[in-house]
Amino acid sequence: MTSTLTDSSPEQIRAACAAAAEAAPAWAAAPIARRAALLHSLAGVLQSARDALVALADEETHLGPVRLNGELDRTAFQLRGFADRLEAGAAQPVQDDPAVPGAPPAGRPRLTRVAVPIGPVAMFAASNFPFAFSVLGGDTASALAAGCTVVVKAHPGHPRLSRAVFELAAAAIAAQGLPAGVLQMVEGAGIPVGVALVRDPAIAAAAFTGSVRGGVALWREANARPRPIPFYGELGSINPVVALPAALAANGAALAGQLAGSIVLGCGQFCTSPGVVIVRGDEVSQTFVKQLAENLAAASPHAMLNAGIRAGFNAGVARLHGRAGVKSLVALPAREAAPGAHLVATDAASFLADEVLREEVFGPSCVVVTVRDAAETLQVLHAIEGTLTVTLWGADEDTADNRELVRAAQAISGRVLFAGVPTGVAVTAAQQHGGPWPSTTNALTTSVGYASMERFLRPVALQDAPAWLIESRGQA
Amino acid sequence: MTSTLTDSSPEQIRAACAAAAEAAPAWAAAPIARRAALLHSLAGVLQSARDALVALADEETHLGPVRLNGELDRTAFQLRGFADRLEAGAAQPVQDDPAVPGAPPAGRPRLTRVAVPIGPVAMFAASNFPFAFSVLGGDTASALAAGCTVVVKAHPGHPRLSRAVFELAAAAIAAQGLPAGVLQMVEGAGIPVGVALVRDPAIAAAAFTGSVRGGVALWREANARPRPIPFYGELGSINPVVALPAALAANGAALAGQLAGSIVLGCGQFCTSPGVVIVRGDEVSQTFVKQLAENLAAASPHAMLNAGIRAGFNAGVARLHGRAGVKSLVALPAREAAPGAHLVATDAASFLADEVLREEVFGPSCVVVTVRDAAETLQVLHAIEGTLTVTLWGADEDTADNRELVRAAQAISGRVLFAGVPTGVAVTAAQQHGGPWPSTTNALTTSVGYASMERFLRPVALQDAPAWLIESRGQA
Repeated sequence: MTSTLTDSSPEQIRAACAAAAEAAPAWAAAPIARRAALLHSLAGVLQSARDALVALADEETHLGPVRLNGELDRTAFQLRGFADRLEAGAAQPVQDDPAVPGAPPAGRPRLTRVAVPIGPVAMFAASNFPFAFSVLGGDTASALAAGCTVVVKAHPGHPRLSRAVFELAAAAIAAQGLPAGVLQMVEGAGIPVGVALVRDPAIAAAAFTGSVRGGVALWREANARPRPIPFYGELGSINPVVALPAALAANGAALAGQLAGSIVLGCGQFCTSPGVVIVRGDEVSQTFVKQLAENLAAASPHAMLNAGIRAGFNAGVARLHGRAGVKSLVALPAREAAPGAHLVATDAASFLADEVLREEVFGPSCVVVTVRDAAETLQVLHAIEGTLTVTLWGADEDTADNRELVRAAQAISGRVLFAGVPTGVAVTAAQQHGGPWPSTTNALTTSVGYASMERFLRPVALQDAPAWLIESRGQA
Repeated sequence: MTSTLTDSSPEQIRAACAAAAEAAPAWAAAPIARRAALLHSLAGVLQSARDALVALADEETHLGPVRLNGELDRTAFQLRGFADRLEAGAAQPVQDDPAVPGAPPAGRPRLTRVAVPIGPVAMFAASNFPFAFSVLGGDTASALAAGCTVVVKAHPGHPRLSRAVFELAAAAIAAQGLPAGVLQMVEGAGIPVGVALVRDPAIAAAAFTGSVRGGVALWREANARPRPIPFYGELGSINPVVALPAALAANGAALAGQLAGSIVLGCGQFCTSPGVVIVRGDEVSQTFVKQLAENLAAASPHAMLNAGIRAGFNAGVARLHGRAGVKSLVALPAREAAPGAHLVATDAASFLADEVLREEVFGPSCVVVTVRDAAETLQVLHAIEGTLTVTLWGADEDTADNRELVRAAQAISGRVLFAGVPTGVAVTAAQQHGGPWPSTTNALTTSVGYASMERFLRPVALQDAPAWLIESRGQA
């Protein structure tokens, strides 16, 4: 194993996609029990190799053993969760409309709506979740559960871990007598590997977690194909937190600690990291801002994932501190590979006038926006446009103002929190991890939670189908 | 009222979109009963004005009063059907995952998945369904049902009918005390009106029924916006019919008559018109082809929608008759504005080698492909790629060949029929009117049936939401 990455050659990429295409029909037709068995087995091999994998991951990502053990467990939990959902019928929903005798429009044939796997999925691993959004992460788990074969593009940030996980997975697949084409992997640090993967005619859909720039470029490739394919990109997000005085009066000090923890968690390298906090000008709110600054000043973020992300963070916070109408509250120096936390403050007018203040800075930094009233809060939220989450503290009562706030939050995001912090995305059936552009390329889908399977299932209506086909839920 | 079309000005388009945007929050928040009442009222006004509307439609489209009365009833049925689905909760689905105490990944907050209207929808009316895919057609009905306001682009093929229907709708909307922005209409024969509509920042999604060329051009516009929007295009389709000897031996003469009727229905101007028939070389199959030709030779298609479509049809059939490996079976001359039916025959090798034979010819024409065996049938189907429907006659038994045939049909289409003909698309919950590219731009969605509402509903996860918000199904 080498720790530097060699780009897969065009021939290797073609071969990986061809293998995935060849294995696709059999995997699509595999009984649900077989799919579930593979997912359970993949969860098992991850946990069995825990110590070696976590050590490798820590070497490559600096995320620390506590977080990485938790992430590995989450990844295994997720694989098993999809298996459970499969056994509950989630990948093979059936809507059966009986025939109605007579002339149309009321009269109709029997129609049975089923779902078929979309075909081989290209899966782009993320830098910041070496387990949960990587080789055996949520995109892979949901695609396999849906009955699709997968070609993973390993992330160059953790090549050795990616290879180790892939080898375990390949062995588990072979042990179940399944073809290697069920899961393939390619590698590449540069753009050409990803482009070749998205362009390959055998690929039927792509799932991506990463930057707006990289994701949008690949989304354009997916749309430029002779036959365009769905591209599910989970991109950037600034996750505003609206902290209303009512919540801060009751619990300000604790919330300041909680929010600071969320900002520096994983060194701020989460797509759900809170990047904007919206507060009022009253004393309780400004005390909260002071407490938030104190908590951040005392925090010790760990090292960032890599030098490129750190350079991006340094440039981002330098830009923030220099903007008009911006006051620096926290600007800690870096300590070796670990950046310091940063906090700046501004008012609504400056925030609305300056789009740099609304750009995601990937890392432990946050912008406090002080607003005069509810109307300015709405203006600030609307200016943010697409984001994965909005957090509303103190909006629990059923008032006209709160309803308007909830509507504004729903309009720009895919998840609205009324307590807690946006980092930490539970894997459940109700989860929605996907908001309006540019936080994702398709806001009607999610990349976390069991509904993520729907991205890879295409509805087909069977008209007057034979009984055997309906009994097998449309799986021929 | 004039019968020639004046393009809406850029100011008019902006004003229509602005009105739709202004009315959007109130319509999104309108109680389900209010939305259902509007849909019922729109169905009622259509049927009350039946005689005048059908006469106008016949003048502008030549589709004949029988078909147009049926289509009007179908459109009213569809509006009422969406109202019924609303009352059953379809526009406000809720998935509630209770909190689980403990540490993640098993421990989690309460998550409630709800759906919010996506925002103002641009709706492009089709030429060939002046009621069912026009001002108050399925796209409008599904968007209104989802809680979205709508800006219709009237089709230039039936401007007077479009205006008449729109005026009735506007009056019904006003009578219910709703703002005019709930439904707006713009007009334009040229490309600029559609482009301006898709580009308008207030528009959140677009629905289109029409040609591949027009649809793909507008889809590209939707993707080129600073904030891209979903573009649901229902484009071209050749709807292959696989007629196996078993079915033809039992029932060949009747099926030949039925298929000929489907080919000439509406003068072949349906997106589900059968454009390819795949048969074997045996005697029973070739007798069926002869009977099909006889039926077509005796058919009298009515006039086409307009001179442009007729010119396209003439060019298309001229191309077909001239291809290598193609034999002309039926080539009836036009009678005034009514084209004659056309049928050509070829073999699998010629069909696979020549993509012209796989292109949709919009009108009463069909290509018979004689294949040697099951393997060639699969090759022919795979070459067709994306289509709305595949019809399989005689594939009812559970055999390996039939399973493979069903898989091939599912791979290229959104609806697989085991009896009957593809024309006539029932409006039900199970219906799927959308297949792989290029038959639609998003094969995971449907433009007919009650699932079409899902195109305009965006999921949002509420985390630890207050009771009042969950009780109102996430509608703030």
